[in-house]
Amino acid sequence: MARYDVPAENHDRVLELLRQLAEASRAEPGNLAFDIFEDIDDPTRIVLLERYVSRDAFAAHRETDHFRDLVLGQIVPLLTSRTVEQLDAEDQ
Amino acid sequence: MARYDVPAENHDRVLELLRQLAEASRAEPGNLAFDIFEDIDDPTRIVLLERYVSRDAFAAHRETDHFRDLVLGQIVPLLTSRTVEQLDAEDQ
Repeated sequence: MARYDVPAENHDRVLELLRQLAEASRAEPGNLAFDIFEDIDDPTRIVLLERYVSRDAFAAHRETDHFRDLVLGQIVPLLTSRTVEQLDAEDQ
Repeated sequence: MARYDVPAENHDRVLELLRQLAEASRAEPGNLAFDIFEDIDDPTRIVLLERYVSRDAFAAHRETDHFRDLVLGQIVPLLTSRTVEQLDAEDQ
């Protein structure tokens, strides 16, 4: 789960980049889901819910060109904050 | 973290109820945050990110009148699915 704070002026650009990232990530063999959520009352708050078959698959995701180019290269510089939590699936 | 699938015809009503729930929940002594997110490409997918000072505080939340009335009594019947994951905060 990743949580982004996006300055209003960067909002549309970040969403555009995130859609590109989602498309590329969903094509990864180890990816099960990549969904982008926005706070209904505060569009500067974005949450990414990604699901991978394993922790290794998630690690492999972070080694891909699209992660380096889109996340590290383009998206992160547009954010005011970013936190990432690695969670083990436990549906109740 | 709660994930709801909301039929389109119930969307606005569920959001209205969730805002009431958020307001009541934020007033609980053990609550740190209650945020409502919507999938940017699929408004039928809603995610609630709630944060409590302890697991006991989260348990107390589920014993409140507003939880019983709003969640169990009004919101759940309007959903097609609901999953709840209890996560221990580990910001990276």
